[in-house]
Amino acid sequence: MRYEEYAALYKNNLLDDVVPFWLKNSQDPQYGGYFTCLDTTGKVFDTDKFIWLQCRQVWCFSMLYNKVEQKQEWLDCAIQGAEFLKKHGRDAAGNWYFSLTRTGDPLIQPCNIFSDCFAAMAYGQLYQATGNEAYSKIATDTFHNILQRQENPKGQYSKAFPGTRPLQNFALPMILCNLVLEMETLLDKEVVETTISNGIRSVMDIFYQPSMGLILENITPDGEFSDSFEGRLINPGHGLEAMWFIMDLATRNNNQDLIIKAKDITLSILEYGWDKENGGIFYFLDVKGAPPQQLEWDQKLWWVHIETIISLLKGYLHTGDERCWEWFEKVHAYTWSHFPDAENGEWFGYLNRQGDPLLQLKGGKWKGCFHVPRGLYQGWNTLQQIAAKKESLSTQVS
Amino acid sequence: MRYEEYAALYKNNLLDDVVPFWLKNSQDPQYGGYFTCLDTTGKVFDTDKFIWLQCRQVWCFSMLYNKVEQKQEWLDCAIQGAEFLKKHGRDAAGNWYFSLTRTGDPLIQPCNIFSDCFAAMAYGQLYQATGNEAYSKIATDTFHNILQRQENPKGQYSKAFPGTRPLQNFALPMILCNLVLEMETLLDKEVVETTISNGIRSVMDIFYQPSMGLILENITPDGEFSDSFEGRLINPGHGLEAMWFIMDLATRNNNQDLIIKAKDITLSILEYGWDKENGGIFYFLDVKGAPPQQLEWDQKLWWVHIETIISLLKGYLHTGDERCWEWFEKVHAYTWSHFPDAENGEWFGYLNRQGDPLLQLKGGKWKGCFHVPRGLYQGWNTLQQIAAKKESLSTQVS
Repeated sequence: MRYEEYAALYKNNLLDDVVPFWLKNSQDPQYGGYFTCLDTTGKVFDTDKFIWLQCRQVWCFSMLYNKVEQKQEWLDCAIQGAEFLKKHGRDAAGNWYFSLTRTGDPLIQPCNIFSDCFAAMAYGQLYQATGNEAYSKIATDTFHNILQRQENPKGQYSKAFPGTRPLQNFALPMILCNLVLEMETLLDKEVVETTISNGIRSVMDIFYQPSMGLILENITPDGEFSDSFEGRLINPGHGLEAMWFIMDLATRNNNQDLIIKAKDITLSILEYGWDKENGGIFYFLDVKGAPPQQLEWDQKLWWVHIETIISLLKGYLHTGDERCWEWFEKVHAYTWSHFPDAENGEWFGYLNRQGDPLLQLKGGKWKGCFHVPRGLYQGWNTLQQIAAKKESLSTQVS
Repeated sequence: MRYEEYAALYKNNLLDDVVPFWLKNSQDPQYGGYFTCLDTTGKVFDTDKFIWLQCRQVWCFSMLYNKVEQKQEWLDCAIQGAEFLKKHGRDAAGNWYFSLTRTGDPLIQPCNIFSDCFAAMAYGQLYQATGNEAYSKIATDTFHNILQRQENPKGQYSKAFPGTRPLQNFALPMILCNLVLEMETLLDKEVVETTISNGIRSVMDIFYQPSMGLILENITPDGEFSDSFEGRLINPGHGLEAMWFIMDLATRNNNQDLIIKAKDITLSILEYGWDKENGGIFYFLDVKGAPPQQLEWDQKLWWVHIETIISLLKGYLHTGDERCWEWFEKVHAYTWSHFPDAENGEWFGYLNRQGDPLLQLKGGKWKGCFHVPRGLYQGWNTLQQIAAKKESLSTQVS
């Protein structure tokens, strides 16, 4: 397939299949917000509202409105979710709950700081679409609350005995690398620059292990390896996703060396995480080859694959390394032959090691309207840029 | 195979394979306690000490000493673990931690009341073996602490927002049905009788749903169905295991009607939980057929299968229902052709849906020296009783 054909495939799947699927099936016209627990056909099988996914859907429809087309129904979809969340999503101190009932009663306490991250991301993007200052205030208040909580993100809900085995976790620094770019126009310049440089250092110098070519999920406060279940854990999808966040930061900072480093790490993690027997990328691995504690370790997840595609395409766009394109074609082939459901729309989320759907769902507690549409948009956009670059190169040559 | 041959198989696997495997590979001669994270060959791959498994191994070797043979090395193995736990296992209020480092420093707070349940069980059994009053006191103090904590077992570590969706969970009433028999001689008669009658009522009248023939894992405070992920959850192994606890209580109380009811529920859960395509019993199911939130739902776990075997054999012994024997032969055949590792000893713990080992381990964070040896002992013992009964029947007839 040619670059333009790939680009069209990503664009069409986004606009003709995935976006309509969520618009049609997920909105709750009675109470506001979104149903995310949708079976294969899009039918609601559970009505709980998980803050991660509520916020991510607000973000997604705002982003589409800002970046693709100013469609009123996209903006309406984002706003109705944001209004529901504005009313029900936070406790008195401004911390975001983990989940709500359909009607908006809090179900699970604010024990997970990523709820806050996705809230800031959602209201930041929605502010760009609307100019509504109330949304901007929620985004910035939440962002500053995250920075304040970042040293002890689980707070009272942490079960770790203080001091015995303190560990730094990769997820928050990684997410901040993306969030800071999302919110750049809303934040003080100094906060932006500090968050960016801390984020890059954290991901590339602290969690990334040059001797392994891998990113560890948990390390000691001194940045050392911890020989424990948590310390040995590799989540290839996490590292692979982080690399396009880093490439975006490097592009902003015009730092080609950093792009090349992120591209090389992408290839290295992918080589390690690829299932040589069955294809696809493992969910979890133990860096010492021991059995991981996650029983789902060998499953193939939608987000891991689409995020990897983004990093490979950005790596190829910015460096021209042909290994990125070769890997892209391989991951693309696996992804498109396993995840999208041509019959009922959207993508399966969870496959077993062999590649068969493990759960008959299009959305659930963790899969919502986010990775697939974001990945399709990023893929489409990056493939178009690659096509344009190749076109301009071939014009120069001829 | 004849009953005696089955009995010999269970006995020999217990005494010639499983018990030696743990004696040889799991003891920590330097700090005391046990390694439970053992790879396929028995090599230690992680040294953390999980209280559930530490206590269960103390219980197991004490039980073998009390019930099978007064071997000094079995008693020594139990005592060294109990001494390590006596020193390191509890916080100042007597609550049991969830895990410790190899040397005994607390790692995870007392957030899980089942640590306490298995501690009471361990020290109760060890007291029977030793007559050491210090062990009896730990057992009874812990038991009373469990009763005090049972209404709010997670305490400060609960993430549920108070009042929105209160649910009763099946696990604690189920475990208490077994624990109270374990500790009967140590407790006041009245406490024993109350705990037994509460346990039976809870399991058989509240969590068991006659209209479904199934046991729900979570129900409302009024005993109603909750249409939520938690409320729809079926854990077939839990229900199947609980049925032999109930049969043991019913045997003690000489209540044949209760035995018959528990036997019928065993058959009903098993019929529901059996994987008709691949064989084996599913780990989790959603009672409405929706996708469960547990990604490991279709896996086949060692404890589910060995516990089911116990319930089927006890059901057959006490009622003579031939369906129990037919199912026993089917579950036995699946279990013995998939879990035991003839080459390296002990049993694999986790199989994928197709029946292939998912993790190359004999022990880990949740699998230790417990279900396999307990199940083998119970199987051996019950099969011997069945054989004796058949023998006596055939003598009467002839």
